[in-house]
Amino acid sequence: MSTLLFLASEPEGPHALRPLLDTVLDALRDGGRARGGPLPAGGPEAVAARVRDAVGDVLPDEGDPDALRALVHALAEGAADPAHPLCAAHLHCPPLAIATAADLAASALNPSMDSWDQAPAASELEALVTRELAAEIYRGWLGGVGGAAGAGRLSGPSRPTGPAPADAVASLTPTALITTGGTESNQLALLLAREAHGSNVRLVIGANAHHSLPRAAWLLGLPDPVVVPAPAGTLDPAALDEALSTLPGPRLVAATAGTTDAGLIDPLPEIAAVCRARGARLHIDAAYGGPLLFSHRHRAKLTGLAAADTVTLDLHKLGWQPVAAGVLAVKDARDLTALHHRADYLNADDDTEAGLPDLLGRSLRTTRRPDVLKIAVTLKALGRTGLGTLVDQVCDHAREFAALVQEHPGFELYDAPTISTVLFRPAGAGDAAVAAVRRKLLLDGRAVLGRARLGGRLWLKATLLNPATRPGDLAGLLKLVEGTTPR
Amino acid sequence: MSTLLFLASEPEGPHALRPLLDTVLDALRDGGRARGGPLPAGGPEAVAARVRDAVGDVLPDEGDPDALRALVHALAEGAADPAHPLCAAHLHCPPLAIATAADLAASALNPSMDSWDQAPAASELEALVTRELAAEIYRGWLGGVGGAAGAGRLSGPSRPTGPAPADAVASLTPTALITTGGTESNQLALLLAREAHGSNVRLVIGANAHHSLPRAAWLLGLPDPVVVPAPAGTLDPAALDEALSTLPGPRLVAATAGTTDAGLIDPLPEIAAVCRARGARLHIDAAYGGPLLFSHRHRAKLTGLAAADTVTLDLHKLGWQPVAAGVLAVKDARDLTALHHRADYLNADDDTEAGLPDLLGRSLRTTRRPDVLKIAVTLKALGRTGLGTLVDQVCDHAREFAALVQEHPGFELYDAPTISTVLFRPAGAGDAAVAAVRRKLLLDGRAVLGRARLGGRLWLKATLLNPATRPGDLAGLLKLVEGTTPR
Repeated sequence: MSTLLFLASEPEGPHALRPLLDTVLDALRDGGRARGGPLPAGGPEAVAARVRDAVGDVLPDEGDPDALRALVHALAEGAADPAHPLCAAHLHCPPLAIATAADLAASALNPSMDSWDQAPAASELEALVTRELAAEIYRGWLGGVGGAAGAGRLSGPSRPTGPAPADAVASLTPTALITTGGTESNQLALLLAREAHGSNVRLVIGANAHHSLPRAAWLLGLPDPVVVPAPAGTLDPAALDEALSTLPGPRLVAATAGTTDAGLIDPLPEIAAVCRARGARLHIDAAYGGPLLFSHRHRAKLTGLAAADTVTLDLHKLGWQPVAAGVLAVKDARDLTALHHRADYLNADDDTEAGLPDLLGRSLRTTRRPDVLKIAVTLKALGRTGLGTLVDQVCDHAREFAALVQEHPGFELYDAPTISTVLFRPAGAGDAAVAAVRRKLLLDGRAVLGRARLGGRLWLKATLLNPATRPGDLAGLLKLVEGTTPR
Repeated sequence: MSTLLFLASEPEGPHALRPLLDTVLDALRDGGRARGGPLPAGGPEAVAARVRDAVGDVLPDEGDPDALRALVHALAEGAADPAHPLCAAHLHCPPLAIATAADLAASALNPSMDSWDQAPAASELEALVTRELAAEIYRGWLGGVGGAAGAGRLSGPSRPTGPAPADAVASLTPTALITTGGTESNQLALLLAREAHGSNVRLVIGANAHHSLPRAAWLLGLPDPVVVPAPAGTLDPAALDEALSTLPGPRLVAATAGTTDAGLIDPLPEIAAVCRARGARLHIDAAYGGPLLFSHRHRAKLTGLAAADTVTLDLHKLGWQPVAAGVLAVKDARDLTALHHRADYLNADDDTEAGLPDLLGRSLRTTRRPDVLKIAVTLKALGRTGLGTLVDQVCDHAREFAALVQEHPGFELYDAPTISTVLFRPAGAGDAAVAAVRRKLLLDGRAVLGRARLGGRLWLKATLLNPATRPGDLAGLLKLVEGTTPR
């Protein structure tokens, strides 16, 4: 059993890891072959039974030296593999091999981001990356005022939408926090608003907003959100203005750049203008759409993003990271004083005064994995050009797939895609039939498609996040749906 | 640049990963050698400067093919390596190689635990493991009533402390949630109490409780906690009883099994009895101490654990997992209905009725990494015996280190260790000198020790979590502190 007890880091760690990683890679390959499609066939009960058989006793008295191979094989055989071109339901991306490899180093060294003496280099890396991501998001806003510190370096192609007065900018430093995903980023955005404006702050969202926003209001003990109808799938500035006009007290508006259902982007500059006029704080949930910033072709779709007080970004969606890779950008770093927290064993005053960085206010978590490593490696290895190319590719795929749908007499297209989501349905089918087609493909293990209700009807959803998808794959997907739809 | 764009999963994934993993392993080895000690020398500014030099431009226009090697090397060179025997400050464990390897499969396949069609096998694996962990924790409680479903299988060596009436047990099923760590587990425990008893529920804790508990009360909009003084380092049942006797309304008592400062365990059976008598809900934060359950020699220290309504467990402490590996065990699965949440794209009613599992109520996160995989592989590969052996080893190390301290005329020992934490200080030194010794060792890159204030004085803290530590390492640690203390 002794090799089972090896530790992952030095001096013997890398040496001990190598054969175990070989076991994992072989089991991933064999498990994937045994699956032979985008997901396992047979539906939940059959898959669960196979997992139970493979696992056996979870916690036996004596260890099982085959456990690593057996469990990884079971996980791979029973995966919905986002790298398969017919796995296209959710904002569930296939991770880049390079990000996946980088993440191994995070596991092996196991830094924890809550104190300097657990993460000396990782904490500095996080500071560098979050500063750069915040600059990327607030570039237009800072660039617009010309005289702000760093504005020269931050100037770029996106146009400012409502630059702040130069004196206000001078004292502001955008920053960002690393989170477990868009949901935690949205929670933090609401928390910062609560701490800035009081616990009577009222969240105002479109009906198209992500479900994590009302859930965060509930979590934080805030009043129920005001939900503005969004029949067209985006938040209408006029309807927002009307809602704000009758709403007393502090308000937090949350707009969306890339809805989960359709990949739509709210009219950000107009919403920002309404918020300014009505004195409301603005959060933009760009969990999906944020990485359009890396693409010269698409970044103009995010004009207005920099007007937000806080921005959610999620690099395990359009950033090809293994989960978790969430970000919350904060325009004014001073907002983060609300998260300041003391624990003598982590950030005693005399240690802080002696120069040990105080990291506890960078998260609501305490122990925290350095998810920033894989993000940093990806940003630097691919650069803006590499990331922009990936963004362009999946947006192109969506356009191509939408064209196939539109040309096909048997299908109806919801609309031209804004990002990489395409909604479609078999012409003439009822909602129940649409839902049944999706489930049939799932249970047969043939394709993973999503669903979305828009304009009062249920649609099939293809969220195209796989840059390696080929034109033939998309035609094949449509043929598969066609063959599954009852005539 | 094309190899940079490979995806991690099939069909080419495992093949594409292999050379990248070799790069990571080599960089881990070389970075560790360049460090040459438990942490980098020179202190925060010097370490940060080296990281900035190694990283250069975080987001260049064109990608850098050397980024993976360079950044992993920088992280390893600048790590506080928990596998080094002189890195012993925090509940920051060296991860097992086998758990680290398993975690790679989670990154490569990238399942997300918020819907079945993103994690068909992983969701079943999580169900199996959480059921087993909950059974392990509530074994004594269920075993004590004899007639409960599954009681035969759950009976074990730990004695029940206040078995519930058989009719109450019959309807209860313990379960557990996977979390990002003890902090999130504690947050969830408070949230479940709030939803069960209302937002006037009052948290009652000892002064020895983890800082995440009052922080969670603040987060959730609950009243400020009542803090019972704990001069001896544990929560005194009589003081608790007195506090509860004058406190109207619903109460949640949080006890600790393994304090962060000293590894002490509150008198759980007595606290449970007070809670029963006063009608208070009980949470036990066993983030540190929980895995004593795996050791025949030490599990009796947790007698009373099973009386808690909720239990925090954290397998990235005494469980040798890469972060994150948190658990919240819940005695009555029905409590989790408070987390039920609907999002049409993830758990539409018709999908749930058609048999697709509804997973959204298993977490407050949405997208969620399958941290359960590494936990499952570790439990099965090591078994109770293997895990228990590791627990016994680090507890033995603490006993041995405490003996060295006690025998040494130049040092004072706080107390015999309960788990694997030893508090000590140079005899006759003032608090400022104790703090300075710790910082000097940190800044010189020679040892990572923690600090704790107990009995009105500041102590050096050695949290021994490395099973591979040798007796000579402990003697060396003491010699190092001796040599650093001003005479």
